[in-house]
Amino acid sequence: MNKTKIKRLLLSDTPIASLQIRGWVRTRRDAKTFSFIEVNDGSCLSGIQVIAEDSLANYEEVRRLSTGSAVAVSGELRESPGKAQKWEILATRIHIYQFAPEDYPLQKKRHTDEFLRSIGHLRPRTNKYGGVFRIRSEAAHEIHRFFHERDFIYVHTPILTGSDCEGAGELFRATTLEPGDHKEADGKDPYAHDFFGQKTHLTVSGQLEAEMFALALGDVYTFGPTFRAENSNTRRHASEFWMVEPEMAFCDLAENMAFAEAFVRHMVAHVLTRCEEDVGLFARFVDKSLLDTLGNIVEKPFVRISYQAAVDILKKSTATFSYEISYGKDLQTEHERYLAETHFRQPVIVHDYPRQIKPFYMRVNDDEKTVAAMDVIVPGIGEIIGGSQREERADVLETRMAETGMDDSSYWWYMDSRRYGSVPHSGFGLGFERFLMLVTGVTNIRDVIPFPRTPGSIDF
Amino acid sequence: MNKTKIKRLLLSDTPIASLQIRGWVRTRRDAKTFSFIEVNDGSCLSGIQVIAEDSLANYEEVRRLSTGSAVAVSGELRESPGKAQKWEILATRIHIYQFAPEDYPLQKKRHTDEFLRSIGHLRPRTNKYGGVFRIRSEAAHEIHRFFHERDFIYVHTPILTGSDCEGAGELFRATTLEPGDHKEADGKDPYAHDFFGQKTHLTVSGQLEAEMFALALGDVYTFGPTFRAENSNTRRHASEFWMVEPEMAFCDLAENMAFAEAFVRHMVAHVLTRCEEDVGLFARFVDKSLLDTLGNIVEKPFVRISYQAAVDILKKSTATFSYEISYGKDLQTEHERYLAETHFRQPVIVHDYPRQIKPFYMRVNDDEKTVAAMDVIVPGIGEIIGGSQREERADVLETRMAETGMDDSSYWWYMDSRRYGSVPHSGFGLGFERFLMLVTGVTNIRDVIPFPRTPGSIDF
Repeated sequence: MNKTKIKRLLLSDTPIASLQIRGWVRTRRDAKTFSFIEVNDGSCLSGIQVIAEDSLANYEEVRRLSTGSAVAVSGELRESPGKAQKWEILATRIHIYQFAPEDYPLQKKRHTDEFLRSIGHLRPRTNKYGGVFRIRSEAAHEIHRFFHERDFIYVHTPILTGSDCEGAGELFRATTLEPGDHKEADGKDPYAHDFFGQKTHLTVSGQLEAEMFALALGDVYTFGPTFRAENSNTRRHASEFWMVEPEMAFCDLAENMAFAEAFVRHMVAHVLTRCEEDVGLFARFVDKSLLDTLGNIVEKPFVRISYQAAVDILKKSTATFSYEISYGKDLQTEHERYLAETHFRQPVIVHDYPRQIKPFYMRVNDDEKTVAAMDVIVPGIGEIIGGSQREERADVLETRMAETGMDDSSYWWYMDSRRYGSVPHSGFGLGFERFLMLVTGVTNIRDVIPFPRTPGSIDF
Repeated sequence: MNKTKIKRLLLSDTPIASLQIRGWVRTRRDAKTFSFIEVNDGSCLSGIQVIAEDSLANYEEVRRLSTGSAVAVSGELRESPGKAQKWEILATRIHIYQFAPEDYPLQKKRHTDEFLRSIGHLRPRTNKYGGVFRIRSEAAHEIHRFFHERDFIYVHTPILTGSDCEGAGELFRATTLEPGDHKEADGKDPYAHDFFGQKTHLTVSGQLEAEMFALALGDVYTFGPTFRAENSNTRRHASEFWMVEPEMAFCDLAENMAFAEAFVRHMVAHVLTRCEEDVGLFARFVDKSLLDTLGNIVEKPFVRISYQAAVDILKKSTATFSYEISYGKDLQTEHERYLAETHFRQPVIVHDYPRQIKPFYMRVNDDEKTVAAMDVIVPGIGEIIGGSQREERADVLETRMAETGMDDSSYWWYMDSRRYGSVPHSGFGLGFERFLMLVTGVTNIRDVIPFPRTPGSIDF
């Protein structure tokens, strides 16, 4: 008999005479001549109530079913006389794959996030983490659907890279040499005998490669893992995380901001609608203000202000900040959150930052002091998107590379794109985990990643 | 004025009075009082013919437009009197972003694949590579849609891993230490001061982690980059490639094979339909038998034979092979291709391989000599999918780990899953690049990857 997913059964309009579900026992309650068994198969937050009567051949075994035990239940879907659920299954047969032992760590009680991190292989079996990872999957799929529908080409930019990726932060190095196998003693290049014959890193962004594809195929995006080897243990940083990076030919900063706003609002609205049951769990138990925050993002247009105006607002505010505000310094998360949570109480796009605090590839504005950068800032998170119009003028780009200390010899291919039919183009990066933290209210990035990697921590 | 993609214009049912396209010049031909300009924007293989008359204000400049130059063309979509195309644009304005210089490498002539690899940043501008990467994008999207529609949860399994990943092939190591910084001299663990405090690799498969999620959420899949540091320069191997790996709880080998077959046939049919124009290019210029090969896959059910039967067929064949055939040795690509191309002339699924040539996690059959493995073999490629039912019995799994020399201490979490509600489950991996080679007829894996990584080669 084919198995049916509980998610589908719970949406049924009519009783079903004969079906089978397979899943894991969440709870069992015994009456005199029958038992209630809640079975969950992971397809949705809800389990289904199974009625097991003492006429079952193996009822004595069924009365020993413990939390985590695996079963296949054949029977009939009927309306439940109970108030807690619409449907229940009257079992005609219960096959037991395996009893979970007494030391099964996920007994029916509240566990701390810290404990659940230590059993990352089991935590998706809980309501909270099942919900997180169902939302993660649905959001990832919707990202693909959103871009596909708009004729964007999905590009798998490389993870292994020989360029130093805009000099952003600390990098992981990839090698096939054993420690001590580097032949630097004889004065030669220590990487000459390495796998790629040169120093190789894990990418921090697919942007530069995506630009090459945008300048061939028009609108493209990447969606893949990126890496930072920063040795900082915060709730907002992981060493491995996923980024979505659209890159659009013939697109200026204003169009880029409009598109970024449309993307974020679409994605939040989609998760609210399609993951209603799971988001409801987070709104009840994790962040009481979640639905207000998300509704606000869907309904109100985002504020747009220049970096200069943002600095003015922050300087005039009576709030105390740990980091000083002054023109020419980058905004810190506390400043961003003040703008979005206290001052405007809605998402804000800050644009046109000073050139000296931004990377070489951002387009220099006519004032020559600022670049066509933009950050989308949302309540509770701070920056969720960073983007810019790219510098399409070869001569200005060369000046900027020199000014920011880039080694232009390894970027000959990037420079080529400014000589062979160069056009205005723009793009941005959305940190996928930050988006998931936004829509779930989860405050630690470790809790929205299946198996998170942070300094000193690489279990599973 | 909003830009329109050429892909959309070419599908138009009616003339359009006013529109704008933006793209790059492919060719220009001049008549006495006007010029034909073919403009391509990457949205599809075809460009659109633009008629530029000498009444244009900048017509003298327009007559200098070279291949690769970037333009925005405003005008009217009208029926073309020419036979080669249905629609053309009569230009009312042509804005020139940049002339491509005379040394633009992609002049209108045939280039070798080797040359185009050396300009990987420009090759997506050619018909062939534009086609490859549009097909790659459409196929990747359809993979997500296929699984999403069937209620599979998409899991981002980690790239960085501390386990040795089934001991499969050579691994890349990830580190933040500089060469010489390993403190092995004092007899301590050389990785004690490394970022994760232990030896860390790039993943070769997300399977083991995906199993943990299947045993919580039911049906899951991963789709992401995987890595092999094999120092072999073949046309079939890259150091970085993408894999699709579904993993299904409550699924046996027969169901796994049926699902793998349905998946491959669906994907081939989808590419044939949705990428008709691009596939047509490959059928004309790359592989004349492409449409026959693909049609055959869509139409005929796959053959299923045991490994034993496959060995018998190969032993009886009169073909000469470089590698010897005997029971207990793995099938080589030449053997696989003989089965699919010569003997059966259609895809074949070989199942139930000898246990000694397969990894520890494959389920031991009742004969105790074979495991519940299966490989899907297609003409022109050989193995495109490898999968198995997984060993769900803790005691047998322990025996197998010992037998295959695995260090079970780093797999405590994997073993846990066989103690806490273990169930029969199965999965497989499809090499995404091999699939792309199948549907395009491209014979070198380097030519279906945006920026391929192979030994000694990490440009761009």
